[in-house]
Amino acid sequence: MASASAAGEAEVPNKRVILKRYVTGFPSEDDMEVVTATARLAVPLGSAAMVVKNLYVSCDPYMRGRMTKHERPSYVPDFVLGEALVNFGVGKVMASGHPDYKVGDLVWGMTGWEEYTLVPKPETFFKINHPEFPLSYYTGVLGMPGLTAWAGFFDVGKPKKGDTVFVSAASGAVGQLVGQLAKLTDCYVVGSAGSDEKVNLLKTKFGYDEAFNYKKEQDLDAALRRYFPEGIDIYFENVGGPTLEAVLDNMRNHGRIPVCGMISQYNLEEPEGVHNLFQVVAKRLRMEGFMVLEYFNQYYKFEEEMAGYLKEGKITYVEDIAEGLEKGPAALIGLFTGRNVGKQLVAVARE
Amino acid sequence: MASASAAGEAEVPNKRVILKRYVTGFPSEDDMEVVTATARLAVPLGSAAMVVKNLYVSCDPYMRGRMTKHERPSYVPDFVLGEALVNFGVGKVMASGHPDYKVGDLVWGMTGWEEYTLVPKPETFFKINHPEFPLSYYTGVLGMPGLTAWAGFFDVGKPKKGDTVFVSAASGAVGQLVGQLAKLTDCYVVGSAGSDEKVNLLKTKFGYDEAFNYKKEQDLDAALRRYFPEGIDIYFENVGGPTLEAVLDNMRNHGRIPVCGMISQYNLEEPEGVHNLFQVVAKRLRMEGFMVLEYFNQYYKFEEEMAGYLKEGKITYVEDIAEGLEKGPAALIGLFTGRNVGKQLVAVARE
Repeated sequence: MASASAAGEAEVPNKRVILKRYVTGFPSEDDMEVVTATARLAVPLGSAAMVVKNLYVSCDPYMRGRMTKHERPSYVPDFVLGEALVNFGVGKVMASGHPDYKVGDLVWGMTGWEEYTLVPKPETFFKINHPEFPLSYYTGVLGMPGLTAWAGFFDVGKPKKGDTVFVSAASGAVGQLVGQLAKLTDCYVVGSAGSDEKVNLLKTKFGYDEAFNYKKEQDLDAALRRYFPEGIDIYFENVGGPTLEAVLDNMRNHGRIPVCGMISQYNLEEPEGVHNLFQVVAKRLRMEGFMVLEYFNQYYKFEEEMAGYLKEGKITYVEDIAEGLEKGPAALIGLFTGRNVGKQLVAVARE
Repeated sequence: MASASAAGEAEVPNKRVILKRYVTGFPSEDDMEVVTATARLAVPLGSAAMVVKNLYVSCDPYMRGRMTKHERPSYVPDFVLGEALVNFGVGKVMASGHPDYKVGDLVWGMTGWEEYTLVPKPETFFKINHPEFPLSYYTGVLGMPGLTAWAGFFDVGKPKKGDTVFVSAASGAVGQLVGQLAKLTDCYVVGSAGSDEKVNLLKTKFGYDEAFNYKKEQDLDAALRRYFPEGIDIYFENVGGPTLEAVLDNMRNHGRIPVCGMISQYNLEEPEGVHNLFQVVAKRLRMEGFMVLEYFNQYYKFEEEMAGYLKEGKITYVEDIAEGLEKGPAALIGLFTGRNVGKQLVAVARE
């Protein structure tokens, strides 16, 4: 390995996954390309930047939005053509000009889909306080998706003991945690997922009271009535579209809908319409979007709480790990076909 | 006038507006009929009921839902065929077996579209504490629509000084008040309405900063961008459909949408779809339905506050009064064509 010498002259090859073209409709692996550039394992003299060696990068549905060119600015910046994709990942500090980040520190934050990333603002990265867990957990249960589930369920959903909870995309990075947090809160929780294997996971591993394969339900409304004869208090919304429509008809008065994402809509040229929003009035519902970034100030509190649950065996987590950046494009596309079982991520390097 | 004699034998003619048939699609006057029945101006011996002489009855958009036969129970009961329509109104107590309601008391509550109504539960009626105002105000600014505006804007909308506020159906019973409450809170407020006359009222009488005739706007999105270059903090939702869709694209981060009603959708066989709900996530919006009934416990507090504003000239109110129950059906239908200017009500009797 090249050393981070004074002038930062050391260069190493830097494999990366770049975006080749902006996407409309369903993305394909061909929209991305694996190329090899070079990286310097040093920071410019006097800079407060750091260089991280990426160990794991996360595949998250919201990345789809960044693959499209937006006329009006989107809520997250579009990816830059020809540059590495950008998302949350886990890394080890290789060089640093920042007083709080030392060589060897394990960190997670917004990094590149590449082997080495120069991070201009290290202070946007979190330190990893529980390296006794698999480090990949910091792309999931102990990282952004974990904080998403925790903030969305507790802060936005405002659950009470005995509430009835429905989770879509329930075996995904966030959904598997929402179900378990709901059980820890003594709620009744039902999840939907897109294969029998996932449904089985929900019931046997994540403690869902009931689960169903939405692809096998002719009539989603009837399915929801079956599982929620008294209606739904909290719908943790990950998918949007027709599922949301069926759920609205089955919400209970004063129900809450934390809106985390709408994966069913991301690849449509024209999103589907939701026709029964009057239920928001009729049932006095609260639908509320949230963004995990706005909970980052509570991250270390969350990390301790979640680490505790993991240690006590109260929370379990299933990951789907693609080995190597070469597998990154397929892993990302797989999110939208539901190929992954559990949290999808890419292992860039094991140490 | 017949006297309320002991055995309650006194009978008087009782003109009433009944629902002749359940409605799908756009209602017509023919769906209703004015008939004459009889009423007793006395309550059964030993009963705690009261008889009210109706002075004013209110025409409200939500009544449309009650004109349809619902398979699954609706949030308000369907009207009963052959019986008088039911809605909020102002009346005078003619007979009472209830200790808290005396003959001659002025009250408002859920009554019939008829001259005299037997009220089995007088305690559901509010006493009128400010008869110095036109009594018709108790179907509007001092009644249900007033409380709706007040609760929806303050409790659900959570306005802050300087917020930008958009109100649809802005010259209606509720909208004209939301605009004025927004100005009292030092917000910037823009309203939309369906005629130039109404737009003029918004600007000259209700203090709206800007107003526009939505029927003259080819591109609602462009209109909203013009009036809200920085986006909308609070959208007070009265109409739904394409207006909501255009608004979602123009909300500001953390915007709030108190959902009061969706009048544009009530007469459609198939409600229109809203395609951009992903904005709820992207902008971290809160859409929240509410129902005025759940604020009735705050009514007398509201009545005092609003009476104060009226006395100080801080709030003004425009009514559109149809004279006589015979005009009731046309007045109700007129709500859906936008014929009314200001709060629509029916004067049943002037004293």
